[in-house]
Amino acid sequence: MTSTARALPRERLLRAAAELFAREGIATTGVEKLCQTAGVSKRTMYQLFETKDALVAESLAEYGPATIAAHLPDDTSEMAPRERILRVFERLEEFADQPEFHGCPFVNTATELRDPGHPASVVARHHKQLLTDYFARQATLAGARDPETLAKQLTIVFDGSAARSVIHGTGLDGLSLLTATALLDAHHASG
Amino acid sequence: MTSTARALPRERLLRAAAELFAREGIATTGVEKLCQTAGVSKRTMYQLFETKDALVAESLAEYGPATIAAHLPDDTSEMAPRERILRVFERLEEFADQPEFHGCPFVNTATELRDPGHPASVVARHHKQLLTDYFARQATLAGARDPETLAKQLTIVFDGSAARSVIHGTGLDGLSLLTATALLDAHHASG
Repeated sequence: MTSTARALPRERLLRAAAELFAREGIATTGVEKLCQTAGVSKRTMYQLFETKDALVAESLAEYGPATIAAHLPDDTSEMAPRERILRVFERLEEFADQPEFHGCPFVNTATELRDPGHPASVVARHHKQLLTDYFARQATLAGARDPETLAKQLTIVFDGSAARSVIHGTGLDGLSLLTATALLDAHHASG
Repeated sequence: MTSTARALPRERLLRAAAELFAREGIATTGVEKLCQTAGVSKRTMYQLFETKDALVAESLAEYGPATIAAHLPDDTSEMAPRERILRVFERLEEFADQPEFHGCPFVNTATELRDPGHPASVVARHHKQLLTDYFARQATLAGARDPETLAKQLTIVFDGSAARSVIHGTGLDGLSLLTATALLDAHHASG
């Protein structure tokens, strides 16, 4: 029981951090607000996390896998590799249609921190790479000419589409799916 | 002379804002630091700009055109429309190779503000649209099947490539150029 009670403020802080950073940004979210939202004292926060930067990195690491998973088709579903890739973009289109969509949290974190060596930038890069790796595996299974390059290109389309949605404040209207399809086709054309 | 003397603090503030916001982010850059960098008192700043938000919007509007221009080929150069489009990506590759590259300031501003209705988000959207419009004009001249869609796709590749460079903290190694070329080719393939 004691260990559960000790674990709770940590979980609450990680969740408050993930939500507030995604919704409002990292610099905008002060320690005061983080603690208030989590219902935790500053003293407790600094006992659990050495710095706000550490909390930024740990909350991204904690909620990163679920963010990735939300974009990928179920492993058990029967889909062709090409369909699996396109499903990621269908999901992105669905997310971008929601008013609370603020783009990719990994890209946003790396962009806001302006420092590729920051612990949270390292976590962001790792998770973005997981998406690229997924694309590469499926592209290989689909028989693409150059799966590694195609995977990087699809990630570029993913992130550029998210940026489009953020800058226009609107959904994507099928554009990310269309662009991903064009690149998949290009990698299967002869030549 | 009097009008020049009055104009100077304003110009210094706009420049300091554009540089600091691009390099360090908007929320991270306090009014204190802005004024210090510009060599202007807070009192003067608030006489010139009603709020920090107004300064964010005006500095982006002031330096936005030069940012766009830096990516576009010279109007007087003799280049085919397709080459003009690809030149934008060659420039992006060059920028992304520089350690001080922090991505697209328009996307970064819109992302950080999390509010498409913020005056600076409106400025950001306007300038991003200028790039898309440029692509659309050149795509039309190049005889693309659907210039408007191609232009949006090229903008997505531009922004996704910039995001890739930021998240990896490296250059693009030709990837944005390769992807733009694939989309240009797709819009000229038969069908």
